[in-house]
Amino acid sequence: MQRDWDARYSRQAARMHLTVVSGPSYPAQAEGFISLRSGAPPAECIPREWLERGMERAWATTQDIFGYQSAMGAWDLRMVVAERMRARGCLDVTPKDVMLLSGAQQGLDFLARLFVNPGDPIAIEDPVYPGAIQTFDLCEPRYLPVPVRDDGLDLDALEATLGREQPTFLYTVPTFQNPTGATMPLARRERLIDLCRAHDLIVVEDDPYSELRFAGHSVPPLRALDADVIYLGTFSKTIAPGIRVGWMVLPEPLKDKLYAMKEAADINSDRVMQQAVAEAIGTGFFPAHLDRIRAIYRERRDAMLAALTEHMPPGVTWTEPEGGFFLWLRLPEGMDVAHVLARGQEHGVGVVPGTGCTVVPGGQSGALRISFCAIPHAQITEGVHRLAGVINSLQRREQ
Amino acid sequence: MQRDWDARYSRQAARMHLTVVSGPSYPAQAEGFISLRSGAPPAECIPREWLERGMERAWATTQDIFGYQSAMGAWDLRMVVAERMRARGCLDVTPKDVMLLSGAQQGLDFLARLFVNPGDPIAIEDPVYPGAIQTFDLCEPRYLPVPVRDDGLDLDALEATLGREQPTFLYTVPTFQNPTGATMPLARRERLIDLCRAHDLIVVEDDPYSELRFAGHSVPPLRALDADVIYLGTFSKTIAPGIRVGWMVLPEPLKDKLYAMKEAADINSDRVMQQAVAEAIGTGFFPAHLDRIRAIYRERRDAMLAALTEHMPPGVTWTEPEGGFFLWLRLPEGMDVAHVLARGQEHGVGVVPGTGCTVVPGGQSGALRISFCAIPHAQITEGVHRLAGVINSLQRREQ
Repeated sequence: MQRDWDARYSRQAARMHLTVVSGPSYPAQAEGFISLRSGAPPAECIPREWLERGMERAWATTQDIFGYQSAMGAWDLRMVVAERMRARGCLDVTPKDVMLLSGAQQGLDFLARLFVNPGDPIAIEDPVYPGAIQTFDLCEPRYLPVPVRDDGLDLDALEATLGREQPTFLYTVPTFQNPTGATMPLARRERLIDLCRAHDLIVVEDDPYSELRFAGHSVPPLRALDADVIYLGTFSKTIAPGIRVGWMVLPEPLKDKLYAMKEAADINSDRVMQQAVAEAIGTGFFPAHLDRIRAIYRERRDAMLAALTEHMPPGVTWTEPEGGFFLWLRLPEGMDVAHVLARGQEHGVGVVPGTGCTVVPGGQSGALRISFCAIPHAQITEGVHRLAGVINSLQRREQ
Repeated sequence: MQRDWDARYSRQAARMHLTVVSGPSYPAQAEGFISLRSGAPPAECIPREWLERGMERAWATTQDIFGYQSAMGAWDLRMVVAERMRARGCLDVTPKDVMLLSGAQQGLDFLARLFVNPGDPIAIEDPVYPGAIQTFDLCEPRYLPVPVRDDGLDLDALEATLGREQPTFLYTVPTFQNPTGATMPLARRERLIDLCRAHDLIVVEDDPYSELRFAGHSVPPLRALDADVIYLGTFSKTIAPGIRVGWMVLPEPLKDKLYAMKEAADINSDRVMQQAVAEAIGTGFFPAHLDRIRAIYRERRDAMLAALTEHMPPGVTWTEPEGGFFLWLRLPEGMDVAHVLARGQEHGVGVVPGTGCTVVPGGQSGALRISFCAIPHAQITEGVHRLAGVINSLQRREQ
């Protein structure tokens, strides 16, 4: 008898789904195709030699990196992370507050499981990082989308929402947001924190990009303004995604629960790699490395902005991020990103459609995410050129 | 205002708990304390040089080990795992059936989420691996404990249960079980598979120890008898736990769901380490390494059995495992393992109490797990001697 597996799934299983940036969602790419989809650092921005040196040192100097370890992770790397957090204005953070994770993504999963019952409301950015939807969906929440403006979360909209609802938490990427590239200025961060305090709203700050600022002035993370903010960080963008080293800075009362959650999920994360990262950063290479890759990303963002200015027809607008990997492009009134996507595929350019970056059914259909991080100047220019051609041709067809 | 975090937790959070083998549960150990608690290979059984060589090769020969990857994991390691599965009688397994995980533990989490709604029954061994309880508890199941005998799961008891109930799945460690060391012979495996087919019962086979057979004859995994069995494997016991490399062999219909589940949970696991393990095994070192560590574990098991025979008072019985790390000791009638634990701590010997290895409240209070894997002959002998002293003294007190 053939088993009917579908009949055996949990309710949660119905909500296991891919995203617009999932591995298999990337369409097959013909020779010469230009992808503006990447959310990963390119090979030239990965400090391969330093990581190798760190690995050698981990191997040579550390006695026990091969056994099980505390679910919190390797102490040496927790020290490194705490020091970096303090340098960014989170003065009270100690290694004891840091839990290492298999990427920041794992923190999203843990926090949703810690706080969300089916039907509970979550305040979430619109547009939002697609992987957050993928993870939060498993808990079957009710989403309260809050618009993201060019200077971050729309606080008036959030305040109006908080007048009606008590979300379990707010999920936000306040710096070089994925997908918009938007960053919230300090004064607005202070208002956000005041709002959250007034409404006893838990804040989950996801901060993968803030060390990749290449223009403008640094802004402290929300966690620097309020020690109750739950902070997620990662080395995926500054070192490499493949190593899966992220972290969470935890308010004291959450530690016991999340320790048990981490053990239940995977006992602990790869200790050898954690030690290698700690040793690598211990060599002192990191600040110069960050300077080097920031210069690369800045040059690529400039190339993208120049190409957009040169090629895009009137009616198209875009964000001008001061860091990170992405910018957000709004199509001319009435143009559907699904058509841009389909025709872009034919014309050899790939983008991330806004429709995959929202919890609002049918939302963000007039926008898309393009990335400047992963390909060199000439390809960025050509990719934007192709994209502008696609938009132009769709515009002509509609007229 | 101080936040009342407790009031904000999900229902699931109430079920996040440590286990009897959790990191922090290990009591502080005085100088000379002998722990018979370990579930991890000792330093002398970890193929450090081979892993280092594998890491060097991964670095030198592989172009892209630093980016995101398929949630299924590194292809080269999936090939290695599939080949090992075929060598163990699972002839149909291909690399496409293998998903790499952050330890087999992660598979327990995913499978519980895929199949279990709150209140759903799970058939589970009694006694059982404590980490399985920790993970499954998050889904709030109703447990149907099935006794484990010296030759594995009690199939009459299972059959009686299946006459009354339809469990979501059966969780079993059929080979060198944790905590008992029991192994189910082939004829009983065949009967188990027949039973499960007749009752459409999903089988989750957790198999961390079967490559560590040092006596007796090899028995095929349940997965070799039925391709619908969901199989969990790991390199934690044969290479090192700290690297967190495990795997799941998946029936085809489950792949899409579990791909999405893995992305939601942590996108993918450490790709660099996966490649290093593939390269290390590619050097051909693994069979000789397994022979070497099996000889070590055999010698230690023999030492433990000899010490038990020499020192234990009448009324104490134990299993005689042909592989793995553990054996199971049953105390004299009426003796409570809590007393053994407390007095053992005073007398410098640590064990895992049976009470932490069961879903039955108050169950397994007359038994304990002792491990022979992690300490040398002389310490095993002395540890068992101390434990026998504790049991003797409790017995005298009760008479």
